[in-house]
Amino acid sequence: MEFKNIDSCTSFTQLMSQEPCNVKKELTKNRIQAYCIAEGGGLSYNYAAMPVDEAILKTLQELSDEQQLIEKYVALLNGEIINTGEKRLVLHQLTRGQILSTVFADGEDKGEFYKTQLDNIKTFSEEVRSGKIKGSTGKTFKTVVQIGIGGSDLGPRALYLALKGSQDSSQLAAKFISNVDPDDAANVLEGLDFESTLFILVSKSGTTLETLTNRDLVIEAIKTSGIKGINPAKHMVAVTSKTSPLASSESVLKAFFIDDYIGGRYSSTSAVGGVLLSLAFGYETFSQLLSGAHEADKLALGMDITQNAALMDALIGVYLRNVCLLPTTAILPYSQALNRFPAHLQQLDMESNGKHVNRRGEAVAYATGPVIFGESGTNGQHSFYQLLHQGTDTVPLQFIGFSESQQDKDIVVEGSTSQEKLNANLVAQIVAFARGKEDTNPNKQFEGNRYSSVITGKQLDAKALGALLAHFENKVMFQGFLWNLNSFDQEGVQLGKVLAKKVLEGCKDDTILKAYADIL
Amino acid sequence: MEFKNIDSCTSFTQLMSQEPCNVKKELTKNRIQAYCIAEGGGLSYNYAAMPVDEAILKTLQELSDEQQLIEKYVALLNGEIINTGEKRLVLHQLTRGQILSTVFADGEDKGEFYKTQLDNIKTFSEEVRSGKIKGSTGKTFKTVVQIGIGGSDLGPRALYLALKGSQDSSQLAAKFISNVDPDDAANVLEGLDFESTLFILVSKSGTTLETLTNRDLVIEAIKTSGIKGINPAKHMVAVTSKTSPLASSESVLKAFFIDDYIGGRYSSTSAVGGVLLSLAFGYETFSQLLSGAHEADKLALGMDITQNAALMDALIGVYLRNVCLLPTTAILPYSQALNRFPAHLQQLDMESNGKHVNRRGEAVAYATGPVIFGESGTNGQHSFYQLLHQGTDTVPLQFIGFSESQQDKDIVVEGSTSQEKLNANLVAQIVAFARGKEDTNPNKQFEGNRYSSVITGKQLDAKALGALLAHFENKVMFQGFLWNLNSFDQEGVQLGKVLAKKVLEGCKDDTILKAYADIL
Repeated sequence: MEFKNIDSCTSFTQLMSQEPCNVKKELTKNRIQAYCIAEGGGLSYNYAAMPVDEAILKTLQELSDEQQLIEKYVALLNGEIINTGEKRLVLHQLTRGQILSTVFADGEDKGEFYKTQLDNIKTFSEEVRSGKIKGSTGKTFKTVVQIGIGGSDLGPRALYLALKGSQDSSQLAAKFISNVDPDDAANVLEGLDFESTLFILVSKSGTTLETLTNRDLVIEAIKTSGIKGINPAKHMVAVTSKTSPLASSESVLKAFFIDDYIGGRYSSTSAVGGVLLSLAFGYETFSQLLSGAHEADKLALGMDITQNAALMDALIGVYLRNVCLLPTTAILPYSQALNRFPAHLQQLDMESNGKHVNRRGEAVAYATGPVIFGESGTNGQHSFYQLLHQGTDTVPLQFIGFSESQQDKDIVVEGSTSQEKLNANLVAQIVAFARGKEDTNPNKQFEGNRYSSVITGKQLDAKALGALLAHFENKVMFQGFLWNLNSFDQEGVQLGKVLAKKVLEGCKDDTILKAYADIL
Repeated sequence: MEFKNIDSCTSFTQLMSQEPCNVKKELTKNRIQAYCIAEGGGLSYNYAAMPVDEAILKTLQELSDEQQLIEKYVALLNGEIINTGEKRLVLHQLTRGQILSTVFADGEDKGEFYKTQLDNIKTFSEEVRSGKIKGSTGKTFKTVVQIGIGGSDLGPRALYLALKGSQDSSQLAAKFISNVDPDDAANVLEGLDFESTLFILVSKSGTTLETLTNRDLVIEAIKTSGIKGINPAKHMVAVTSKTSPLASSESVLKAFFIDDYIGGRYSSTSAVGGVLLSLAFGYETFSQLLSGAHEADKLALGMDITQNAALMDALIGVYLRNVCLLPTTAILPYSQALNRFPAHLQQLDMESNGKHVNRRGEAVAYATGPVIFGESGTNGQHSFYQLLHQGTDTVPLQFIGFSESQQDKDIVVEGSTSQEKLNANLVAQIVAFARGKEDTNPNKQFEGNRYSSVITGKQLDAKALGALLAHFENKVMFQGFLWNLNSFDQEGVQLGKVLAKKVLEGCKDDTILKAYADIL
């Protein structure tokens, strides 16, 4: 197995000479049926409106083979040190279940380690939800608040919001504190009944500035609340690594463990997302999410790119980025429940592949990870789609949609339900972007040939959501292999932390502009 | 006054030959003090870390003069038909107060028209807030729900969230229904006390599909709630144009008016934002917001670019886009309250200037509006900043920060408050992006020379927020003039609407993929 730059692949050189297919002309009914791949969780990935044809697909297959993408994924699953910068294994797929060989590290079977955490989550969440474990003043817990930032916040928050509407209303409510901005905590704490609230502190290192600060802020708020006999330690659990200061702390009710082989942005299916989701919706829902992700992980092993949705998505993305030279990608879920899913994918993708040196630390001569942004449809249609349709740049689009709504609270207005209107808009947009429209008024002219893919499913349930999450995780992993990057470290976030300490020492009480001038 | 393409300006040709200044080398204390412009509402715009020097600034001043940016703004304020595509005046600044001559249209003084709406908003909101106007079953209104999409949603929502924390807790709560996805309305309506809820229907045309559908869905929910004697019409007001079907409707308690001269994305300071914000926080807060915006509007008249923050921001943006060829811009507010402000600016900018034909309908040969995205800091630092620091592309950054938090709920942890930590991070990021860091480990090497500006203020209050909003509106307006675009229409959203109707007729009950294939 060889790790090499994409521009040293002969298939990549071949690809660079292959002109994008004209989607305006080529988008046909047949293509929609043919360019479609089953993904886990009952989802389909359709790339009929992407600028690839049989010749390009052939080269993409060769590229996949030449870069040994599946071999590298197999090596990852088998516990090789894929995160070479930090000399770590990469095991987030294992949190969903073992696929290949058993992985040993730190003197233990890692699959067993994750399984033990799951068992602990199951037991604890059932005891909290049944009222066996109560708050320190004897009240049943009704609200959970996750305190975490980055990967400890965006993924779990996106997943919680995605499933909230599909659950019956007897569930625990979840809230989130992430920003070190004190107004964030103040807003969440306002009106909160501390006696029935359980806080989940999430920090792998146990040293994250924002999270520790917000924990102290919460403890202070509980202490000064005047509630007789309340004990903050009985209202907090931790999700952290075994060796972190939080793990041994007596200031929490219970600790759940993660390890160094789960990156923050890949941690939603570990205890980082599991404790929150199991408390909020019950363990069974979280378990369904894991099974959907596991299905997608297994499908991602397929060598044939026309049968492997994550792999195909990754390869087309590289074609868009390196051959078509398109620097951005929009994520457009036609589902209000997926409102914060683009923000999670923004971290997942940009933090993994927003790098300009390869695995050996050498600068690469090609573009890597794109800028990711997006909002749910139809909202985005009334916002930034103007630029997508008629701007000077092409933005590739990743649509997501479901045939059925989550909640059955829909009515017929003017002959159709809201869900039918939602999906009619989704289909109309794909076609409008691809085909455009001729008009004698140039303001009303749409050039078309704007590229998109769409992931579809029957309904956004926990299983489909897990598969959707894993689809993008695996896509990003394959793209990292293609570009020869280490997608699993994030050195780019360190410098700011170091400098922030320096600013804090030098100019604490100043205005922003004075501090800015003084630090130079 | 002449409208011409930017590439026909001699100053633009000159600009194209001017190399960007190296921010890594040039960022100094002196520059931070010198490259700073007072904006309305007590704000400052600082562009010390932008790649411009005295020579480039001189050319940008010439470009501003040659493109007659201030003359065009004056013409707009004086009521000329600036939205030529739709043959309309552009009067959103007038909603904040008259600056130059009185504007007459449709047989009336438009300043008086907006003033009358404000008076109506003041009276109505005071009567609702005092309990004089009650719900149909006699309960005082405690919650308002805005039903609108695009400009009727994003701006008002961003402003509401921005000010919510600064208000005392006796205020009315606001919620929002925008998406045609029925799960959006279902989530908002769940647990809502209809008897104390007032819905605000916002649609200029009175025909917006999503808004009318959601209105009907809400009426149905009220009717089937089983509440005795409740009358939906007494729980709804409309914000619409005088000629719309909603205006004459007897199904609302009261109608407030806007007109064709206020584009959706520019309507936050009209009744579209005013009714909601005045009901939620009281008219005085909304009035303060208007005064901040009015201050910024007046400052935007300055001919000297070094004294006109919005103008300078616009010109630097064009330099970044057309000379440095940078296709995206990130909006990074270090304020959790501004969490949804980037989503509003995304619409404002991308819908206004995401166009490839000029005011005469001719295709332009230069890049226009960039892709806009962003999240609040410090959250973004733990997410996509990796790419911003070490990715292969440069993304210009617009930071926003305030010396003080909104709520005084802050504590000292490890020697500093949360607000101090927040702002130390902001300053550290600007410096880290500009200066980078040498390291023998290439993974830990930061090249620096990544560009940013920062808008700062003392505290995010209503006046500062109004100025911040107007700053970006005016920036976008000036950029539209620079690129010779009509920034005030949005033809790019029409085709999708037409096609959606066609899809609805043809394949209502099908899965998404079947509908997709069938429509071709």
